[in-house]
Amino acid sequence: MSRKTILSGMQPTQARLHLGNLEGALRNWVRLQDDYKLYCCVVDWHALTTMAEDPSEISANSREIAKDYLAAGIDPDRSSVFIQSHVKEHAELHLLLSMVTPIGWLERVPTYKEKKLALKTESEPYGLLGYPVLQAADILLYKPYGVPVGKDQAPHLEITREIARRFNFLYGEVFPEFVNLIGEVPLLIGTDGRKMSKSYDNAIYLSDTEDETAEKIKNAFTTPTKMRKTDPGVPENCAVCNLLKVYSKDWQKQWDEDRQGLRGCMQNKLECVEAVNERLRPLRERRRQISDSDIEPVLARGAREAREVAARTMDEVRAAMKLR
Amino acid sequence: MSRKTILSGMQPTQARLHLGNLEGALRNWVRLQDDYKLYCCVVDWHALTTMAEDPSEISANSREIAKDYLAAGIDPDRSSVFIQSHVKEHAELHLLLSMVTPIGWLERVPTYKEKKLALKTESEPYGLLGYPVLQAADILLYKPYGVPVGKDQAPHLEITREIARRFNFLYGEVFPEFVNLIGEVPLLIGTDGRKMSKSYDNAIYLSDTEDETAEKIKNAFTTPTKMRKTDPGVPENCAVCNLLKVYSKDWQKQWDEDRQGLRGCMQNKLECVEAVNERLRPLRERRRQISDSDIEPVLARGAREAREVAARTMDEVRAAMKLR
Repeated sequence: MSRKTILSGMQPTQARLHLGNLEGALRNWVRLQDDYKLYCCVVDWHALTTMAEDPSEISANSREIAKDYLAAGIDPDRSSVFIQSHVKEHAELHLLLSMVTPIGWLERVPTYKEKKLALKTESEPYGLLGYPVLQAADILLYKPYGVPVGKDQAPHLEITREIARRFNFLYGEVFPEFVNLIGEVPLLIGTDGRKMSKSYDNAIYLSDTEDETAEKIKNAFTTPTKMRKTDPGVPENCAVCNLLKVYSKDWQKQWDEDRQGLRGCMQNKLECVEAVNERLRPLRERRRQISDSDIEPVLARGAREAREVAARTMDEVRAAMKLR
Repeated sequence: MSRKTILSGMQPTQARLHLGNLEGALRNWVRLQDDYKLYCCVVDWHALTTMAEDPSEISANSREIAKDYLAAGIDPDRSSVFIQSHVKEHAELHLLLSMVTPIGWLERVPTYKEKKLALKTESEPYGLLGYPVLQAADILLYKPYGVPVGKDQAPHLEITREIARRFNFLYGEVFPEFVNLIGEVPLLIGTDGRKMSKSYDNAIYLSDTEDETAEKIKNAFTTPTKMRKTDPGVPENCAVCNLLKVYSKDWQKQWDEDRQGLRGCMQNKLECVEAVNERLRPLRERRRQISDSDIEPVLARGAREAREVAARTMDEVRAAMKLR
């Protein structure tokens, strides 16, 4: 029996993935490969919704992210790794879904309002409003059994479901309902104590060297009132302790000692550097071995495999809409 | 030297073209074929902006309109007749242009507000707002020298120009400016004295029989105060006199006699039936000879030819945007 399909993707607005992307999403995808056929997309057209004024880096970013996918353990022999714009069916389904998506649904999406403000232009692009339509196309083309998603992103998928239901209501059952595959993933805290994010400049990247990683952790935020080793720490709020929680086997002992003033922040930092670098070592080693010329055939094959499924779905979509 | 390109299209919201479409657009296209390479499109995806809830007739309508094109004299050996949805590049360019089109430009389009009201839904589809973006894609894909357009439609092309300029400004000169080819075309008046239009139910169709045409003209609106032959007519406001003006060589004499009470409305009608049917006879004869199986190869060839140009433009577009 063929494996059930799942679909996931990331935007190439940045060149490199950080530990938040790795632990919050990628590791989960890698695990899911054992049970599902994974279509693993780099959604470059999406990046245009906020980068249209200078898209020059999108294409290189996409390749770097694909390398991160492979380095993290996405296996191109089992999963299809591809770039969205290489599968034109995404654009066609986007156009067709745009005809059945009430504009009011899109205007009410909370992230639309945020992104609109962040763009600081007089009039945001039409495509920004249509972001959820394109996302719906990305997902529905593969008729997935499920979509891996972080807890906080689950609401983003609701509009995809609404669009699918409306399509099915108008034209007959083409898109099956899909489930949210919510992984038990840790929240990664950045070096300043806030959520790890490219835009906060507080991220440790998969592609950082061990020295760069050490430098970042050594300068990371700890408990401000812990001036001396014997001062009690508040590990819940300490960036280094939060990294230890994810990367160190001994984190419970480390947290207890921190809280009780039995260890200093520098010891935490040194052990954290060790733990993080040790965990990332095999991944970084793999990443170094993936060259530009390695990644193109992977993407070409992934696009071919994705296109096969996408083209089949589009045949069904056109038949349901009686377009020929 | 290769001929300059022009691009034109009609929506398959109706199955049949009427005399207004014929005299107002098609005849002009047929003439332009002598000087230009014409891409002659049936824009089926556009019809979805208002027919998404029941698109079942779009596909058959598209074939009927293509038959009307040929019957009117569009020559598939010189011009490319095709259906928009057969050339997927329209969807891709639509998506890319959606990223550079400020939403404010679209909200200000007067026909958007009209169509929105006409739809009578709580929330109009996203794609209705994006209509001008799709139209821009339709036109710009062929980098035309010009677009044949009625005087009253010229403003509709302005937003295409704005989108092209914005694209060129952001990514470099890809889309040349195009001109409006405004034909000297008559305004066709329908049988009720208003502009001929499918939605007014006042149209004479290319596919009507001679008897159907006669029936319609005999019941057409004339001068209400002209009860007897000797009463003076007002030919400017008489539907039959307006048809005579377009179809009869002797219309000036007919108008004078009508105005002076020297002829009755029935005489006008009989001469009008004769004139209209005579003019349409060769066209209707050709149309009868075009079967369903004739039209498919024409559309397949047209799509192939259109795709060739469209694919080349998309290569330039992607290169300019540095997407690969």
